[in-house]
Amino acid sequence: MWQLYQFPLCPFSRKVRLLLGEKGVAYDLIRESPWQMRDEFLDLNPAGTTPVMVDEDTNATLIDSQAICEYFEETVERFPLISGTAAGRAEIRRLVAFFDQSFYGDIVAPLLHERMKKRLVERAPPDARILREAMKRANTHMDYMDYLLDHRSWMAGGTMSLADIAAAAHVSVADYLGGIDWSSHEPVKRWYAGFKSRPSFRPLLSERMEVIAPPAHYEKPDF
Amino acid sequence: MWQLYQFPLCPFSRKVRLLLGEKGVAYDLIRESPWQMRDEFLDLNPAGTTPVMVDEDTNATLIDSQAICEYFEETVERFPLISGTAAGRAEIRRLVAFFDQSFYGDIVAPLLHERMKKRLVERAPPDARILREAMKRANTHMDYMDYLLDHRSWMAGGTMSLADIAAAAHVSVADYLGGIDWSSHEPVKRWYAGFKSRPSFRPLLSERMEVIAPPAHYEKPDF
Ligand SMILES: N[C@@H](CCC(=O)N[C@@H](CS)C(=O)NCC(=O)O)C(=O)O
Ligand SMILES: N[C@@H](CCC(=O)N[C@@H](CS)C(=O)NCC(=O)O)C(=O)O
Repeated sequence: MWQLYQFPLCPFSRKVRLLLGEKGVAYDLIRESPWQMRDEFLDLNPAGTTPVMVDEDTNATLIDSQAICEYFEETVERFPLISGTAAGRAEIRRLVAFFDQSFYGDIVAPLLHERMKKRLVERAPPDARILREAMKRANTHMDYMDYLLDHRSWMAGGTMSLADIAAAAHVSVADYLGGIDWSSHEPVKRWYAGFKSRPSFRPLLSERMEVIAPPAHYEKPDF
Repeated sequence: MWQLYQFPLCPFSRKVRLLLGEKGVAYDLIRESPWQMRDEFLDLNPAGTTPVMVDEDTNATLIDSQAICEYFEETVERFPLISGTAAGRAEIRRLVAFFDQSFYGDIVAPLLHERMKKRLVERAPPDARILREAMKRANTHMDYMDYLLDHRSWMAGGTMSLADIAAAAHVSVADYLGGIDWSSHEPVKRWYAGFKSRPSFRPLLSERMEVIAPPAHYEKPDF
C-alpha cells in the first residue's frame, strides 16, 4: 500500500490525491508538517517538501508532485490525465506548471503563510495588506481561467486533464483560506462546482486544518 | 525551424538548449528579457517567463522548460534523457524539479537578481549579504550533489539524464555570476568538467551577458 505524507492544506498533495482518486489507486495518509523540518522527513526528502509517497512493501519513494503524477500516469492506464498529441500534452504540462508556480506563488503561498504558518509557528496575526494583494492577484488569475474556459470545455482542451486537477487543487486551498471572490467569475465557478461534486474531491473538502476554519460556502457544490 | 526566446543567463533556457543540442534539434535564438514585460511576449506567454519555443512553420508554441523537454523527449528518439523504469524516470524528474526549484530559488534567482537585474533595471549595486548567503547555500547544495555522485555515475543513476542537464544549466549560471566555490567539491567538479567539454555545452559557455563578465575560470574545462 502507498503512504502519502501530506497535510490537509498542501495544494501539491491535493493534486496528487485527486489524480490517485480518479485513477483508483489506494493510499494511506500520513500527516506531515514540512515547516517542522523533522529529521526523519528530511532523510526521506532532502528538499523537505510534501507530498512524498512511500510504497510500504518495496520502500520505493516518490518525491515532487509532478514526478509522482507522471509516475502514476505511466503505470496506471485508467483515466489518462496527460493524454492526446505531443502538443496537447505540452499544453497540459504548461498549465500544470502555471498553476503550480504562478498561481501557487502569487496566491496560495502568501495565503498559507499569513493565515496558517504565522498562526502555527509565530503565533502572529496575518498581514492584511499581503492578504489583500493575494486576493487581487487571485482575481487576475481567475480572469485568465475564465478566458480559457470560454474557449475550451476544460482548462487544457476538450477533455479533463491534470491541468484541471492542478487548478482545482490550488483554487480549493485558496478558497479554504478565504482568498477567492466568486462574484464575477461564472465560467470558473461552473467548472469548479462540477469538480466539487466528483467523488475524488469529496474527501478533501471534508478535511480541516485545526487552526483555521474555511468560509461557510467552502464545501458546498452550490455556492 | 524552431525559435527559442531566451537570454544568455536564463538557466531554464540553458536546460532546453542542452537537451536540444544532445538530441540534434536545430533552432534559432531570439533574445528576450522577461523583466521588460513586452506586450508581444506576454501575448505569447501569459506567465511572462523564458524559455518559450515557437515553430515558425506551424506556429506551435511551447512554454515552460519542463513541458518543452518532455515534448522533445516524446517526439525525438535520439539520446533519451528521461529513460529507464517508471521509478527511474520518477527519480530523474525529482532531481530536475529539485534543481529547477530549490537550486534555482536558493542560489541562482538571488544571484541573478543582485548581479544582473539590479544593474540592468535599478542601476543599483548588489547586496553583499544576499550574495554571501546564496554562496553559502550553493555550498550545501554542492555537498548533496557530491553525495549523489559518490553513489552514482550520473546525478540520477547509471546514465546521463535530464537531471544532469538541469543541474549543469543551473550550476553554469551560478558559476558565471561568481557564486560557486570549487575548492572542496571534487565529485561535482569532475562531473562538471566532463559536461563543459560536451559539444552541446560549448556554445552556451562562449556567450556573454553584456553587463557582467564571468570569472576567468568560467569557460575553461580545466578549472
Ligand atoms: N515542487 C514540489 C513543491 C512542493 C511544496 O512546495 N510543498 C510545500 C507545502 S504546500 C512545502 O513542503 N513547503 C515547505 C518548504 O518549502 O520548506 C511539488 O510539486 O511537490
Ligand atoms: N517554470 C518555468 C520557469 C522559467 C523562469 O522562471 N524563467 C525566468 C528567467 S530565468 C523568468 O522568465 N523570470 C521572469 C519572471 O518571473 O517574471 C520554466 O521552467 O520555464
